[in-house]
Amino acid sequence: MTYTLVLLRHGESEWNAKNLFTGWVDVALSEKGVEEAKRGGKLLRDAGVLPDVVHTSLLRRAMNTAHLALDAADRLWIPVKRSWRLNERHYGALQGKDKAQTLAEFGEEQFMLWRRSYDVPPPAIEVGSEFSQDADPRYADAPQVLTECLKDVLERALPYWDAEIVPDLKAGKTVLVAAHGNSLRAIVKYLDGISDEDIAGLNIPTGIPLVYELDEETLKPVKPGQYLDPDAAAEAIKAVANQGKK
Amino acid sequence: MTYTLVLLRHGESEWNAKNLFTGWVDVALSEKGVEEAKRGGKLLRDAGVLPDVVHTSLLRRAMNTAHLALDAADRLWIPVKRSWRLNERHYGALQGKDKAQTLAEFGEEQFMLWRRSYDVPPPAIEVGSEFSQDADPRYADAPQVLTECLKDVLERALPYWDAEIVPDLKAGKTVLVAAHGNSLRAIVKYLDGISDEDIAGLNIPTGIPLVYELDEETLKPVKPGQYLDPDAAAEAIKAVANQGKK
Repeated sequence: MTYTLVLLRHGESEWNAKNLFTGWVDVALSEKGVEEAKRGGKLLRDAGVLPDVVHTSLLRRAMNTAHLALDAADRLWIPVKRSWRLNERHYGALQGKDKAQTLAEFGEEQFMLWRRSYDVPPPAIEVGSEFSQDADPRYADAPQVLTECLKDVLERALPYWDAEIVPDLKAGKTVLVAAHGNSLRAIVKYLDGISDEDIAGLNIPTGIPLVYELDEETLKPVKPGQYLDPDAAAEAIKAVANQGKK
Repeated sequence: MTYTLVLLRHGESEWNAKNLFTGWVDVALSEKGVEEAKRGGKLLRDAGVLPDVVHTSLLRRAMNTAHLALDAADRLWIPVKRSWRLNERHYGALQGKDKAQTLAEFGEEQFMLWRRSYDVPPPAIEVGSEFSQDADPRYADAPQVLTECLKDVLERALPYWDAEIVPDLKAGKTVLVAAHGNSLRAIVKYLDGISDEDIAGLNIPTGIPLVYELDEETLKPVKPGQYLDPDAAAEAIKAVANQGKK
């Protein structure tokens, strides 16, 4: 017997379209992102992959993606659990900044280090500044977070994986995790045992459910995760790779 | 000290507009219903009544109303709990039927008895028929329900009130209950001690938050519930009363 885990990255947000660093800033989905989420739900429905429980971050782009997808799959009624531990990586002082401007200001080497290195976080955001979440009531029970590298994300996501997701899997539930590029990369790094170096090359496309079958003893994948629309996923991954070459 | 409870009836559904008996049939909000839900959230935000937890039924018109309202109030991230015990009254064999046709077929006396009496349920729906929910997986843990009167609704809602809502209130949380005309009438009957006869005359308008302050000892209202837009609520209640006179 295996357990079923479904990872779903939120669709395009209003700041993706504007090319701004987002992180924990709570921006809404764009119209395109709304359509991506609905399509993700239809892929689940058509594949008969029906979540019994959903875990989301505390950011509305992931919460809305989960909601729209589950509504489209007629599974809106399943239990919902939320945690800051599934949030996108906190982007520190870069939050709210234009990506092209940041690249011009700091140069490509520094820029790529912040974006893709495993353990180098951007500078911390200033407490009380416009794009900081230090006063946001949703994080009242969380430690103060002012910047993160991917390693930090994995370290704060793992306790949630162990305490909340694993028990749902072990109860035989099909678990949907609706989250972000970097919190999902952290989970995939953990599940697939990807090295600190190789994780830089992994991109997860938006809005396409990624389905894992996990061994019931080890809770590790018995085979590579499968996208429910493999062609669209391959195309999206290729597009991101080409983007990096520009 | 008092506890704060907010009741929110879902906005117009697609079947309200078509004048069909709905009950447990899982129809979507109409465009108007979507706007009502967003407006309800803005009323919460503007009044500074910020839910710490939300309880909904298992029907998408209530789940979507909660979601849209909380998004508008910037409280989408609060914990969500759902139960069939907050569902609309099951309308039995009338589910899916046209209201005007039903009135013509059965006469006004019988029609009003089914709609407004406290303890006379409509005939049971046939198991396996088009508008029955007996095979719906969301009710796998619920007893089989084939019809209900308002008394039945109160009797199945009260255990949820005691087990799930009261503990949240006693923890000092502002509790939002997003549900339906009849499940909310049942809760209001209980809270305000309305008689079996007088409850027939109570209507709760859609999309306008109704805020109760509850005594910390008795968990009963210290004063009448307050609509966050009293003028709009009064107008909606008057419109329903006039509708009854036609």
